[in-house]
Amino acid sequence: MNKAKIRLFVNWPLGAGQAVALTADQANYLFNVMRLARGAQVLLFNGQHGEWRAEVAEAGKRGGVLLCAQQTAPQVMPPDLWLLFAPIKKARTDFIVEKAVEMGAARICPVQTQHTHADRIRPEKLTAHANEAAEQCGATFVPPVDDLRPLDQVLATWPEGRLLFWADEARAGQNLPISGATAAPSALLIGPEGGFSDAEKMRLRALPFVRPFALGPRILRADTAAVAALTLWQVQMGDWGGAGA
Amino acid sequence: MNKAKIRLFVNWPLGAGQAVALTADQANYLFNVMRLARGAQVLLFNGQHGEWRAEVAEAGKRGGVLLCAQQTAPQVMPPDLWLLFAPIKKARTDFIVEKAVEMGAARICPVQTQHTHADRIRPEKLTAHANEAAEQCGATFVPPVDDLRPLDQVLATWPEGRLLFWADEARAGQNLPISGATAAPSALLIGPEGGFSDAEKMRLRALPFVRPFALGPRILRADTAAVAALTLWQVQMGDWGGAGA
Repeated sequence: MNKAKIRLFVNWPLGAGQAVALTADQANYLFNVMRLARGAQVLLFNGQHGEWRAEVAEAGKRGGVLLCAQQTAPQVMPPDLWLLFAPIKKARTDFIVEKAVEMGAARICPVQTQHTHADRIRPEKLTAHANEAAEQCGATFVPPVDDLRPLDQVLATWPEGRLLFWADEARAGQNLPISGATAAPSALLIGPEGGFSDAEKMRLRALPFVRPFALGPRILRADTAAVAALTLWQVQMGDWGGAGA
Repeated sequence: MNKAKIRLFVNWPLGAGQAVALTADQANYLFNVMRLARGAQVLLFNGQHGEWRAEVAEAGKRGGVLLCAQQTAPQVMPPDLWLLFAPIKKARTDFIVEKAVEMGAARICPVQTQHTHADRIRPEKLTAHANEAAEQCGATFVPPVDDLRPLDQVLATWPEGRLLFWADEARAGQNLPISGATAAPSALLIGPEGGFSDAEKMRLRALPFVRPFALGPRILRADTAAVAALTLWQVQMGDWGGAGA
């Protein structure tokens, strides 16, 4: 029996009999917006302990308590894939974060490139978007959103053994797929509107861990490119179960 | 020499020496917003005659004339792929149309399903979005946007020889790729939020031209599912040049 429809991300340990205290925002959402009362059921996840069915034990105006009853799904970690992208207009940046969660990225890394207009992001807002996307898509994991870092610095401190698949616009129309050892630690790099600078392209081409790939004959917006690249990686190397033919 | 940066979709024949009359909206965009003057260059396409470099011959407040100088790209038609989707919230419907153009769909078919909330769309607005997306992504073709039609009716009058690849949420996590004869006429069917009804699923499963496929283990929003499905089809059967391995 599982009548719970609402899925909620909580920053709280989950386990049998565990009491979970709600924040004021969560209490407002559950009790004012969604009109839940004592005894109502909710699905909870925290990114670590799977998904749990919980029951409302106390419903207040500025808080409340849920009691974990039963685990409804195990904790599932996404494949070891990072998404690097250059933040663009706010709505599209929010969108990329949402899509990265749905598509199963393990970490979201905003990078500042020479043609990136944004010089700051709001990681706490982006984290809230990521939590919400996980609530919607049924994931039990929420990828962390890094602070904005210069691409140069990210490349200079790149971890050994991780491949960086670079969506290279210059390769448009080429048959240049994403491929590599299955389940190798990976990252995808999506450029900003206006593309990478010549200096950045030269540097990327020279780095041994960089693998260029192509995204078809048309010029994709950054948000489209992110979803398309995540699709290709998940099918070839991730948890989508193989492209077959 | 090609200094033209602006790409403009026009409803007008294009060819060497052809004069192209601008609408009031286009004149406002070119001469007021973008501050172009006589002699400035623009790239034009009309969905049929490739892309042309044209020069501003007359710039007025409510109109203007461009003269076609030289063809800069041939007409390229997308593969024979339709995108069927159930319109959702306005912003996400606009987004699906934009993505369908970037990803190279040949026709955009909004369908009304039993769980579709929308009972009308504004095809002229969606067509404007499609034109704008084509201007951005460098395509010379703009897919037509059909009127909203009931899914039942669309299925009852389905053209012979066209495959319908159906993103079946019940197959989540299965290894069920998009595959078929390369370049076969195809369509993709993306469900509404809330999925298809049981009656719709039964009908889809029974139809000989329907091929179910899976989009990974997480539940994707309709707009994400559209981009992911278009990616899989383009790589396997379309103009993205093969998935390789």
